[in-house]
Amino acid sequence: MPKIVDHEQRRQEIAAAAARVIAERGVDEVTMIAIGEAAGMTTGAVTHYFADKDEVILAALRWADSAMRARAQRAFETHDDVVSIVLEVLPTDRASRIEWIVWGVFSERAARSRALMNEQRARNQWWLELTAAEITRQQREGHVDPGLDAELEAKLSIVMINGLGFLAAYDPESWPEAEQRRVLEHYFQPVGPWRSK
Amino acid sequence: MPKIVDHEQRRQEIAAAAARVIAERGVDEVTMIAIGEAAGMTTGAVTHYFADKDEVILAALRWADSAMRARAQRAFETHDDVVSIVLEVLPTDRASRIEWIVWGVFSERAARSRALMNEQRARNQWWLELTAAEITRQQREGHVDPGLDAELEAKLSIVMINGLGFLAAYDPESWPEAEQRRVLEHYFQPVGPWRSK
Repeated sequence: MPKIVDHEQRRQEIAAAAARVIAERGVDEVTMIAIGEAAGMTTGAVTHYFADKDEVILAALRWADSAMRARAQRAFETHDDVVSIVLEVLPTDRASRIEWIVWGVFSERAARSRALMNEQRARNQWWLELTAAEITRQQREGHVDPGLDAELEAKLSIVMINGLGFLAAYDPESWPEAEQRRVLEHYFQPVGPWRSK
Repeated sequence: MPKIVDHEQRRQEIAAAAARVIAERGVDEVTMIAIGEAAGMTTGAVTHYFADKDEVILAALRWADSAMRARAQRAFETHDDVVSIVLEVLPTDRASRIEWIVWGVFSERAARSRALMNEQRARNQWWLELTAAEITRQQREGHVDPGLDAELEAKLSIVMINGLGFLAAYDPESWPEAEQRRVLEHYFQPVGPWRSK
């Protein structure tokens, strides 16, 4: 089914271009024309795949989420220290920074829409479970104090990662990778092996 | 100078109304008409005080920042445990939630404007210094391990508070005050007296 694959790939390219426009110019500056330009397509090509601006923005947000999940997956395969794993997801380069800015825009919009909020909650739940599962795994393997409340520890870690991610995405000059690493190491260092793995 | 006071008070009322519109409808839905309605004034009254939409939005952002600083000041006077102090600043009711949403909008906009970024950095610096000063004070009084790096600890605390603030502002149902408290207690409990004061 090459045509379907093509179609999906085209949609993803447009979504990625829309994410760039959102991050660089702000969500209120997003137009079908600007997205087309960023994707190197005609406006007609964009409207062929997406009915309106809101539909492309939603696709951009889903695209950013997928990109972040893929990053997390790769991070677990590549690193075994928690700081390096988390750093792979944080905004340390242009691509990851775009994802975080889009994630922030989506979070803010979800606060005003029940449908978007349900989607956003499912995403937050996915990240929480991924983190809790990792802590539990390390508890089973004896690396982490079994007395630690994995769900609560995961929740706090997600809170901290969100804070660092937003701050660094909005002000990358103040938050180069080394500074993000310094704060992460301070966070993970003091409490038991999960935070000091 | 009653006229000047009046003028400033009027501007503040409009700024507060604009903050409500931003939080409830999104920054792209902000119009001079909507702000006038929210402030209980005519559009003409709004344009008398502010040249355009961007000027009111900036005033709303400064208003939200002042409100949060006032909250922090009151918190230090009212409470002496760190969890209760931080909770006073976090989005636990409608008013504080509006401030956080406006803060988020501003942070995102500042990422695309050098002038706004300089303002935002000065604000972040103010919060960082407030927090570091409190840790240092507690170190001097013997409540906190003098070996703790006050600046780094303050930075991590600000990161964590930002994460919690944004998450709770966008999804208050998932983050009632009790849940914010639970995560804060977990954060401040394990490491030395600063986090367990």
